Amino acid sequence: MNCLLIEPGEWVEGSDRIRITGRRRRHAEEILRASTGDRLRVGVIGGRLGTARILGLDAETLELAVDLDQDPPPKRALQFVLALPRPPVFRRLVATIASLGAESLLVVGTARSEKSFWQSRAIEPGAVRERLLLGLEQASDTILPSVEFHRVFESLVEQVLPPRLEGRRGFVAHPGAPKPCPHAVDQPVTVFVGPEGGLLDDEVERLESIGFESVDLGPRVLRVEPVIPLIVGRLFR
Amino acid sequence: MNCLLIEPGEWVEGSDRIRITGRRRRHAEEILRASTGDRLRVGVIGGRLGTARILGLDAETLELAVDLDQDPPPKRALQFVLALPRPPVFRRLVATIASLGAESLLVVGTARSEKSFWQSRAIEPGAVRERLLLGLEQASDTILPSVEFHRVFESLVEQVLPPRLEGRRGFVAHPGAPKPCPHAVDQPVTVFVGPEGGLLDDEVERLESIGFESVDLGPRVLRVEPVIPLIVGRLFR
Repeated sequence: MNCLLIEPGEWVEGSDRIRITGRRRRHAEEILRASTGDRLRVGVIGGRLGTARILGLDAETLELAVDLDQDPPPKRALQFVLALPRPPVFRRLVATIASLGAESLLVVGTARSEKSFWQSRAIEPGAVRERLLLGLEQASDTILPSVEFHRVFESLVEQVLPPRLEGRRGFVAHPGAPKPCPHAVDQPVTVFVGPEGGLLDDEVERLESIGFESVDLGPRVLRVEPVIPLIVGRLFR
Repeated sequence: MNCLLIEPGEWVEGSDRIRITGRRRRHAEEILRASTGDRLRVGVIGGRLGTARILGLDAETLELAVDLDQDPPPKRALQFVLALPRPPVFRRLVATIASLGAESLLVVGTARSEKSFWQSRAIEPGAVRERLLLGLEQASDTILPSVEFHRVFESLVEQVLPPRLEGRRGFVAHPGAPKPCPHAVDQPVTVFVGPEGGLLDDEVERLESIGFESVDLGPRVLRVEPVIPLIVGRLFR
């Protein structure tokens, strides 16, 4: 946690004070080994960043005086479309995608996606929000990326994706595509990453038909977890 | 597992047959749902890739007729120098670094590395080799990257790293460095990635004094797990 995030509702309006319990209090005590008088980096979810002075820290409560003086870092002009992976991978990726500064994440079904993953509690809104916040705390950001789920590939391609590609370049990672993934495109992008077993050729063609460019990431087929940051490192400055 | 890897000793010299038990047999049966007559992608550790026809698969043994007709993909001209992270992160990163095609990994101590991590069984040679093989299986590669451990930062910088930088560019990821990490450098590289808490300014200066260029990866401080593939996506075509 590089930045302690405060829920807007925890804030006492008209004061600079806040009281925190639970995981974040424990983190301040046990990991940061903070004590009264120390300063922490903080942010208000959906709002600004700043510093907080610890007014008190006991076994139940962390009390802070907060000074917000900075905007969060700008988001990358980046939308991810991701075939739902195994739940433990999904949990880690949600935090990673938030920390990388993506604007939005669309989690989708494809022919080779495992259907049982849609029963996982990892995709419940509360669980997703918790993982997003871990990613934002890591990156000192306050703005939650939007996360949506679309299980049916055909309606995704027909209705959901076309308006999202307006004014953007769309890339779909597809091993063996003739074109390598470009570097530093300096444009807003939407990136489609398929399931571990890959997209069907038909699915890639459907995505190409609505404007996606299929791109290759080299001769090594990677797991989805490293593919996500690898693409971000490639496409962005 | 995109490629079943065979130990050189499992190979019956002068024949094309091989018998496999344990994890790889189970994977063929339970995950790949393979049966007699099916073909699998295989490789010999340290050797060539090819295909194998399943001659028999029962509750104990997978028997294969192997035809090796392809060289493994070339390695990237990439050495990683990595501050020892938490053991579960280290385990995943060893596989990831192997799958990304790095030539070598040097695992090192720094001021902010947690000393207790050096007691972990995750750094024992057998455990490291097992994780490397998982990464190679993922990427359909057969060549194990070298992995070494150097716990003392000062002797690392004085003796170990200088000869390894000959003919290469060295980069150290350091948040706030004035120069952004370049794209597609087309040269052999050595990349130093510090611990979660970051390198000390003194340590960065010592690395610069032997030829490392400190580079910035943007305003978001990321965990080491996404940083590794992000840098590979950035530096390589």
